[in-house]
Amino acid sequence: MEKVELLMTQMVETLDDKYILELFEKIPKGKRLRAKLILKIAGLSEDAYKLAAIVELIHAASLLHDDVIDDAMLRRGQESINSIFGDKTSIMLGDILYSTGFAALTALPQNVAFKVSNAVALLSAGELLDVELSKKFNDNEEQYIDMIYKKTASLIEASSASAAMLGGKNVEIYEIYGKNLGLAFQVIDDILDITQDSDKLGKPSLHDFKEGKTTLPYLYLYKRIDADEKKKLLSLFKKDLDEDDRMWIKNRMKETCSLDDSMEYARKLGGEALESIKDEKNDHLSDIITQMIYRDF
Amino acid sequence: MEKVELLMTQMVETLDDKYILELFEKIPKGKRLRAKLILKIAGLSEDAYKLAAIVELIHAASLLHDDVIDDAMLRRGQESINSIFGDKTSIMLGDILYSTGFAALTALPQNVAFKVSNAVALLSAGELLDVELSKKFNDNEEQYIDMIYKKTASLIEASSASAAMLGGKNVEIYEIYGKNLGLAFQVIDDILDITQDSDKLGKPSLHDFKEGKTTLPYLYLYKRIDADEKKKLLSLFKKDLDEDDRMWIKNRMKETCSLDDSMEYARKLGGEALESIKDEKNDHLSDIITQMIYRDF
Repeated sequence: MEKVELLMTQMVETLDDKYILELFEKIPKGKRLRAKLILKIAGLSEDAYKLAAIVELIHAASLLHDDVIDDAMLRRGQESINSIFGDKTSIMLGDILYSTGFAALTALPQNVAFKVSNAVALLSAGELLDVELSKKFNDNEEQYIDMIYKKTASLIEASSASAAMLGGKNVEIYEIYGKNLGLAFQVIDDILDITQDSDKLGKPSLHDFKEGKTTLPYLYLYKRIDADEKKKLLSLFKKDLDEDDRMWIKNRMKETCSLDDSMEYARKLGGEALESIKDEKNDHLSDIITQMIYRDF
Repeated sequence: MEKVELLMTQMVETLDDKYILELFEKIPKGKRLRAKLILKIAGLSEDAYKLAAIVELIHAASLLHDDVIDDAMLRRGQESINSIFGDKTSIMLGDILYSTGFAALTALPQNVAFKVSNAVALLSAGELLDVELSKKFNDNEEQYIDMIYKKTASLIEASSASAAMLGGKNVEIYEIYGKNLGLAFQVIDDILDITQDSDKLGKPSLHDFKEGKTTLPYLYLYKRIDADEKKKLLSLFKKDLDEDDRMWIKNRMKETCSLDDSMEYARKLGGEALESIKDEKNDHLSDIITQMIYRDF
């Protein structure tokens, strides 16, 4: 992964701007899931390393804008760029990383460049949909799945498919693998927002609900409670919750199996991902699914 | 130009999202300088129309983010997208137009795709530099020119150069033409912010100074006034100006030839642009320079 980090830095260095490089180095590094995925599928070619670095730059750009949209002060337990330098700097740094990634992408094969850039268009459309859905209590599961497909799964799907292109593998099955991995990843993230404490998350617990996001466990819960409880849940939407409210939400989610069934939904997606690549005999890809589902942060 | 508008809409329609299309149609249409330039240089090929539409999408995206950064409520006399739908929607719509443009760009020759995407990286770096320079009273002319080169000229330079690539023309001379045209364009814009009334501008007059931008006329003025007046000018920096303050700034700029010399600077850039393409015998390109310099909004 060191080579990917180095390439990312080199791409940013092409701008020949010390301040930008300094800002870039302050961005909390992530799990680099997309880069690992690309290298495991495409193999360790120069183009694969480049693609991995580009996709991680693009992903970092999307998180910079995401944190502005969500008014997030923390990212992976560290202060977010917007909390240190303000929204304006975050927006611009995001644009810089996006366009640096796109410029580097033009050196890769045309089908790879299209796949990745098209996914970014979907990703941005997904962010916009997320903002729209968060304006009121969304109780539509289909819209939630469409939104997380665009917002999270599209870039993981494109990473997987474009890595298959570079590695000369069957693109279609890797596309299915990536899409299901991406959807499962987001569902797990949404579950962890509820089940984990804020220390582990590196951000406040139950933050999604405060931000107007009714993720899968909320959608299940809402369907499974009576009119009075529905009214109570709606009254807490987007509010600062006290400890009693938090406990009530978490307990009712446990009692109604809303958390278990969300977990089961993610596991099913993981199973579909594994099914699609079962003939590829690549243990790393099964490990990625397992680690992603059974993670606790 | 109708064909360019149609192509832009079609590119946005690939996302298959009614709300996005609706937002897109609410963006005030501009002068389409970059599209005209591309068609005049590359000729009316399918690729030239595509490039023109892509560059205008990218330019529109940059303005959406620009208006968020500048807290601009008006754009070309109409309400800006951020003033109607809020900053979050503007940021996301900008990302959507950027990435849709980049995805379409992958269908064009690799050298064209690189030139344009690299310019967007410079453009974003220029926006960031603009934000940084605006934090205090910048009296450094070199930094101002570097900033407007990146922020405004780089995409016009890339439009001109990549159109020359498509049209099989001498790329180098069109690059020089585009760069000087772009620099002159921004200097003229900065002059008009001072000389024109708000009706004509479609935004408040002397808005730049309020936003912390010491454009060329301010840089000249600051150099040409004595210590007491320097102090007065600094005291007005970023403040809401009353009519007396406005008149004082404008009059002192006239008396010190700061406006005339800024105009002369733009004319000189225009002359360099014309010089570089003098053997191309393309009257349209001379007309673009003339119209751009002698415009009043």
